[in-house]
Amino acid sequence: MNKTTIRPRTDRGIREVPTRIEYDILGEREIPANVYWGIRTQRAVDNLSITGTPISQYPHLINALGMIKEAAARANVELGQLDSERADAIIATCREIRSGQLHDQFPVDVIQGGAGTATNINANEVIANRALELLGHSKGAYHHLHPNEHVNLSQSTADVYPTAGRLAMVLGLHDLLLAMSELFIAFESKANEAQGVLNASPSQLQGAVPVALEQKFRVYSEMLEEDHARLLDASHLLREVNLGATVIGADLKDSKRYTDIMRHHLVAVSGLHLTTAGNLGDATPYDCGAFIHLSGVLKRIAVNLSKACNNLRLPSSGQGAGRKETNLWPGNINPVALEVVNQVAFEVIGNDITITMAAETGQLHNAFEPLILHSLSKSITHMAAACRTLARRLLISITADEEALRHSDEGSAGLVAALNPHIGYTAATRVAKQAQMTGRSIAELVLEQGLLPADELAALLCPLKSAAEQR
Amino acid sequence: MNKTTIRPRTDRGIREVPTRIEYDILGEREIPANVYWGIRTQRAVDNLSITGTPISQYPHLINALGMIKEAAARANVELGQLDSERADAIIATCREIRSGQLHDQFPVDVIQGGAGTATNINANEVIANRALELLGHSKGAYHHLHPNEHVNLSQSTADVYPTAGRLAMVLGLHDLLLAMSELFIAFESKANEAQGVLNASPSQLQGAVPVALEQKFRVYSEMLEEDHARLLDASHLLREVNLGATVIGADLKDSKRYTDIMRHHLVAVSGLHLTTAGNLGDATPYDCGAFIHLSGVLKRIAVNLSKACNNLRLPSSGQGAGRKETNLWPGNINPVALEVVNQVAFEVIGNDITITMAAETGQLHNAFEPLILHSLSKSITHMAAACRTLARRLLISITADEEALRHSDEGSAGLVAALNPHIGYTAATRVAKQAQMTGRSIAELVLEQGLLPADELAALLCPLKSAAEQR
Amino acid sequence: MNKTTIRPRTDRGIREVPTRIEYDILGEREIPANVYWGIRTQRAVDNLSITGTPISQYPHLINALGMIKEAAARANVELGQLDSERADAIIATCREIRSGQLHDQFPVDVIQGGAGTATNINANEVIANRALELLGHSKGAYHHLHPNEHVNLSQSTADVYPTAGRLAMVLGLHDLLLAMSELFIAFESKANEAQGVLNASPSQLQGAVPVALEQKFRVYSEMLEEDHARLLDASHLLREVNLGATVIGADLKDSKRYTDIMRHHLVAVSGLHLTTAGNLGDATPYDCGAFIHLSGVLKRIAVNLSKACNNLRLPSSGQGAGRKETNLWPGNINPVALEVVNQVAFEVIGNDITITMAAETGQLHNAFEPLILHSLSKSITHMAAACRTLARRLLISITADEEALRHSDEGSAGLVAALNPHIGYTAATRVAKQAQMTGRSIAELVLEQGLLPADELAALLCPLKSAAEQR
Amino acid sequence: MNKTTIRPRTDRGIREVPTRIEYDILGEREIPANVYWGIRTQRAVDNLSITGTPISQYPHLINALGMIKEAAARANVELGQLDSERADAIIATCREIRSGQLHDQFPVDVIQGGAGTATNINANEVIANRALELLGHSKGAYHHLHPNEHVNLSQSTADVYPTAGRLAMVLGLHDLLLAMSELFIAFESKANEAQGVLNASPSQLQGAVPVALEQKFRVYSEMLEEDHARLLDASHLLREVNLGATVIGADLKDSKRYTDIMRHHLVAVSGLHLTTAGNLGDATPYDCGAFIHLSGVLKRIAVNLSKACNNLRLPSSGQGAGRKETNLWPGNINPVALEVVNQVAFEVIGNDITITMAAETGQLHNAFEPLILHSLSKSITHMAAACRTLARRLLISITADEEALRHSDEGSAGLVAALNPHIGYTAATRVAKQAQMTGRSIAELVLEQGLLPADELAALLCPLKSAAEQR
Repeated sequence: MNKTTIRPRTDRGIREVPTRIEYDILGEREIPANVYWGIRTQRAVDNLSITGTPISQYPHLINALGMIKEAAARANVELGQLDSERADAIIATCREIRSGQLHDQFPVDVIQGGAGTATNINANEVIANRALELLGHSKGAYHHLHPNEHVNLSQSTADVYPTAGRLAMVLGLHDLLLAMSELFIAFESKANEAQGVLNASPSQLQGAVPVALEQKFRVYSEMLEEDHARLLDASHLLREVNLGATVIGADLKDSKRYTDIMRHHLVAVSGLHLTTAGNLGDATPYDCGAFIHLSGVLKRIAVNLSKACNNLRLPSSGQGAGRKETNLWPGNINPVALEVVNQVAFEVIGNDITITMAAETGQLHNAFEPLILHSLSKSITHMAAACRTLARRLLISITADEEALRHSDEGSAGLVAALNPHIGYTAATRVAKQAQMTGRSIAELVLEQGLLPADELAALLCPLKSAAEQR
Repeated sequence: MNKTTIRPRTDRGIREVPTRIEYDILGEREIPANVYWGIRTQRAVDNLSITGTPISQYPHLINALGMIKEAAARANVELGQLDSERADAIIATCREIRSGQLHDQFPVDVIQGGAGTATNINANEVIANRALELLGHSKGAYHHLHPNEHVNLSQSTADVYPTAGRLAMVLGLHDLLLAMSELFIAFESKANEAQGVLNASPSQLQGAVPVALEQKFRVYSEMLEEDHARLLDASHLLREVNLGATVIGADLKDSKRYTDIMRHHLVAVSGLHLTTAGNLGDATPYDCGAFIHLSGVLKRIAVNLSKACNNLRLPSSGQGAGRKETNLWPGNINPVALEVVNQVAFEVIGNDITITMAAETGQLHNAFEPLILHSLSKSITHMAAACRTLARRLLISITADEEALRHSDEGSAGLVAALNPHIGYTAATRVAKQAQMTGRSIAELVLEQGLLPADELAALLCPLKSAAEQR
Repeated sequence: MNKTTIRPRTDRGIREVPTRIEYDILGEREIPANVYWGIRTQRAVDNLSITGTPISQYPHLINALGMIKEAAARANVELGQLDSERADAIIATCREIRSGQLHDQFPVDVIQGGAGTATNINANEVIANRALELLGHSKGAYHHLHPNEHVNLSQSTADVYPTAGRLAMVLGLHDLLLAMSELFIAFESKANEAQGVLNASPSQLQGAVPVALEQKFRVYSEMLEEDHARLLDASHLLREVNLGATVIGADLKDSKRYTDIMRHHLVAVSGLHLTTAGNLGDATPYDCGAFIHLSGVLKRIAVNLSKACNNLRLPSSGQGAGRKETNLWPGNINPVALEVVNQVAFEVIGNDITITMAAETGQLHNAFEPLILHSLSKSITHMAAACRTLARRLLISITADEEALRHSDEGSAGLVAALNPHIGYTAATRVAKQAQMTGRSIAELVLEQGLLPADELAALLCPLKSAAEQR
Repeated sequence: MNKTTIRPRTDRGIREVPTRIEYDILGEREIPANVYWGIRTQRAVDNLSITGTPISQYPHLINALGMIKEAAARANVELGQLDSERADAIIATCREIRSGQLHDQFPVDVIQGGAGTATNINANEVIANRALELLGHSKGAYHHLHPNEHVNLSQSTADVYPTAGRLAMVLGLHDLLLAMSELFIAFESKANEAQGVLNASPSQLQGAVPVALEQKFRVYSEMLEEDHARLLDASHLLREVNLGATVIGADLKDSKRYTDIMRHHLVAVSGLHLTTAGNLGDATPYDCGAFIHLSGVLKRIAVNLSKACNNLRLPSSGQGAGRKETNLWPGNINPVALEVVNQVAFEVIGNDITITMAAETGQLHNAFEPLILHSLSKSITHMAAACRTLARRLLISITADEEALRHSDEGSAGLVAALNPHIGYTAATRVAKQAQMTGRSIAELVLEQGLLPADELAALLCPLKSAAEQR
């Protein structure tokens, strides 16, 4: 491992950077002396750079790799495959990774071929070189501790990468679940504030059955709470992993014991309840079902969030039944928070198509899992930010303009549907038409024409009571 | 209701068709004397014809309307809102509908505006006119029995249409669930036939860990069985209906009782376990969650079916590890069954986007539910046909070409991964390279070079044993 | 060809249907005696029924097949490959097809495998059997005139089907282009009616620069006119066909002459200007570019139509700047026409994804072209119906509510942007805030505070003049 | 502008950062003293952070803003609206922007609401503060030179942002067009290398008409060259801008002159041929047609690239007609380059849906243009990287395995189609079946059975000649 130098072109002139040399099947390659990755990682960086975004941008994925490599080292020790000196150095490095100290050592592109091979190689090399340092060796002295023969022992990309992807999604979902909780609680608290405020729910008839503003906010809250429950389900589906699959077929007598020990250590290291896939030899790489399912739930949430934004936006301008329902924008503030959430929703829906195509096309083993993880990661983090934006930038500023709401409802042609069972379809339609043509309120016309006594009409105008009775 | 005639232009000349006249707000309109629909249905047909496909093509939807109108008539009698003479005529008509006798009386287009108003009107008018006949009156004599005041009593499109849509989907899913069962059982029986046949599972490395052909078929079977379970869940979510929502706000004291009685009768008539939505005033029309969820599950199944077809297609030509794995096509038969299933999958994925946009855009009440139901209906029926095609036209003809399989595996470079833990990464890679260059089998080279004893190598070549141990 | 009978189960009991027997590689099969299709068509119907929709529902496709088979027969005569007796019978049959007399003889499913093989077989058999009749032979007497050796002579599915698909699309686009013309002319005529009516164009600021209602309608007209031009381009791209590709490689000396003669006759028969693809051997089946391009243009039109509907819907309820801009709905009519157009747009967008996946996945030759044609056909016919619905059911009823428009504009906070260059950003913002808080009009406040002389302000309130100057 | 300090929490303890204070309608806000952006930019950063990706990641967008602001300053001087001292400072700053010196001063998120308002504000504030410095004033001394009153003079977000977006796309497309050229030239050069190598083009029949390997590469080259032409068209459509639209309605006499002068300067500054949109008042913000069109073309290219990768991948393993067509992978290299391109294609297709939804939903003015630009930017840059990867990492290593190719073709059942016109359908089918059953070559059987003389058969096996004749 002799030292030499490369001379990168910088705008300040040529600078000498200390390097080391590593070798592979294609020959030798200089690598900056201070980095922990090795030649195969360097080749991947040299060969493929599509997005310019390194996987270090996904801290949950890097941490998950640290968890898996630590669990594998512990399992290999227990199974007598690895000596404890090397194992301790590997484990210490994995803990450094999870504390964030080595995240910048993961330069391979988020979009990569080979079903995640570059990511696994990157982890193996970083851990090997850092562990070598801890053991007092120089980087690259792989005869002491080898990326493949020791760090990747009893593993392969085919079980490490899918397992790391699933753990990373579970970790990322923790944050989204929190953000969603914050949002549905904010809607619920708005609903509580709005008790007693009347509001017509516009429909095809341009004004229909009157409902309470309270009910509207409560609908959003309940809708999101159910979405939250579904997301939690999707998160649980991800906890079935195939770590240990590599050794299946290798040592027949012990394969079941092997996967059990692997899982046992991964549960301990990650603190997550995990199960082992039933059909290890094949199931996981063939079936992206859990990822498609997650993407489908994210899309469902996106649709509901976007629709809530559409509904919150429109009434602020008097849409539907011609009234200002909520005074959304104090001062001169634009509805930018709503617009941002819509855009995140459209992005998530587009990501779902990307994920669908990657899952469908992936032939035997899924070479396109990197794209699936990349797309899901974006959807999860952007949607968490969108939920918080809605809760903190928008909902907090909404106050109902009660006066306008009460006034407008009396004239709503929308009462027709509510009047129908009491005064008949023909009469209700006639009154609605008169109201439309004269500008007078339906309530007034109903009373004037003796179609209903005042107390019954009053009851019709107070749907809150019925809403309360339902609960 | 005087009779007159219209003269349709036909290619055989002018023909006299007996008609009756009905009236609405826009004036009068001749209607063929023998049809049961009325003027408002006729207007919908006159005004809007997009696809040329009438809703009569969706028998489950028509039957669901018959169930709902019967349940509503029974509830109205129980609540003292409707006399039993009219109710009996309505109920008798609803039973005719469900026996298929009146399906051709539903001419409105499957794509319609107004959140399904035309469909509800069509049902009300057909039932009214046929019930009038049963009561000895002529069609159109609505003062005896009125489409709106009697057939639609205590209902509106806002609760009838979403409820009918959900029932129709549940009924349609029965058939798809059956077709999927047939398919996963067919895969399972192929797996049982294939016991003991070796097969390399091709991966990025062009030949990887050897797995059993049995395992492969079993993976498809298990994947589809899990999809089946998810579809059953999605079907259960559809059983929450909002029938009765119309009367909320109308008669406050009784609204809870009203929806309970409505649901009670609908359960009895349909034989389906149904629940009432929690937030009746608003929840259902706002939230298309159950439909989006169903579409997401259908898309997931589509992806899995399409992927299974891709995998079944490729190995038949020796893709991956350079061998013929299954002798898919006896004689000269083309893989058209596989191609048909792929196409249905692509259609279902496109439908999912259509449904997503319809759900997202639908403002306050969802005007686009007709498109959602139309798209889901296509996805469900086409996918059921696809599953049956795969089971009956393809799987039945597959026979493994065992000789070719055994032969090829011995030379597979794919054994490298399996050899790795036993002879080390470096040696395994070297042997694989030699095999590739010399055309000799890996097994032979391993034995020749004394890397493994023959019995250990044999164990490596028999992954079936480990697969069996897992179960 | 001895006669026998089959006994279909009908609800009226068992009925004897005369049959004939045909043979293929799989054995014999009874076929109803009166149908023109043969055993291979029957097998396709027996084996694969996914949608239940036969290709006879696509008259343009059937007519295109008639054109191609006639052109091929004429070319084969000219090239000395076919005697004129058989050719005349084939040609006479093709003309019957194009007059619509044999459309019901095309029962194969619209979704089919084999890259359209079933469709080509269906055409060959129908033409052979009808031509046999014309020649005085009985159906099935293929030794006199054979579906493959005579009707399909010098052709194969690989050139017949793509060519038929392209012709069918071109024929279908004629109708859509007409419907779009009708719509953009309707918008233009609305624009002419609306001259002089003021209208604020709502923006993020809830009321922005005032623009003319005329301009708005003119924008829709211009947008659709440009879409029309693009659709015409897309239609032209479809005129490059590969008829004659089959004979390439067969007779090297004549191949160029062959394709020229084929195209010459197809141009004469179809009346369409057609060119031959440059790289006949491969280009067409590999490249679905013209279909993807067409689908992309259809999606673009769908987006523009849907957006126009959104914009037409909202202002009718006073959205945006809080005013009724157009009085869209005289009487009690629902915006169902708009909603229908939105739904067609969502369907077209979903179809585009279906087409994209079919084009992307199709491996070497495109087995999925049937799905592409099916999806395009739906998009084209539904969109033509949507354009006509918008022009005839909606635009005709729009009348501007001028009084409301003029009144509302004076108070629009949206004038801020227009005032900005004249009175400075700070002053404009202050006035807008005052207007919002006091409910007074901006115009009034500007004059009261001496920020602008009355004549300059008047000019600001009359943007029509500038719009007129642009033209 | 008194100085004060903020104390950011860092992991190294509290550090004093010098700040300045700015004011807006919501009150005061400390801003780091060394940054050029102002309080409104800071508010946008504080309020909305969704992706964490600042617009500074889109250098073309930042440069386009520099071009527009310079052009506007020049136009304002020419029109007597701006003094040349301020204009010179603004212009000098714009040039610094375009040289890349101030790109890091653009921190607002790529996904933002308000139709790009935050981006325009960011540009105005950065330019104002840097220009103030150049004029010897301190940052924030806006009474000397104001972001709105001077930098944004005669402009608004409604014309600046769409114009900047279009310029940015045009600049980005330059690079993609270059990358595509490199790729289609690489395919063409592979075609030239492959002259004379035979290859069967697999079809539904598992081996069909023999075509030349040369032809296959040429198809890719021609397909991509046509895609390139379409992309160039799409790029030209983007050159219609609406800069100057803001002043429409402001000063009626001069509005036409204004937009002409604006465009004149923008053409000079950008070096791009630009035109002004016809219906300035409305057209651009309503119509995202040019962006949808661009996205459609990008999707078309994605489909073609992905399909080319699928086709290049399969034959390397002997798919289709059971042979190794090209020796794609020397050594042990995985097909990761192909897989990366597939993934980019799926991402571009998902982005197209995102863009479609953003364009369709955007109501009157398009609030969602930021998402459209974000998605297009990703598609353009990733696709350029994918094209280069394919050209440089994959094509360069392909060498045809001629021996295998020649050998395999003689036995190809695919010759049936070519034999059909010479020996009849029945004989051709029989020979193919014999070949399949006996493993003998079709050529051998044809000669043995005297079906064709040797010279005719040889001609059939040499389709290259006919391919050559076509050109």
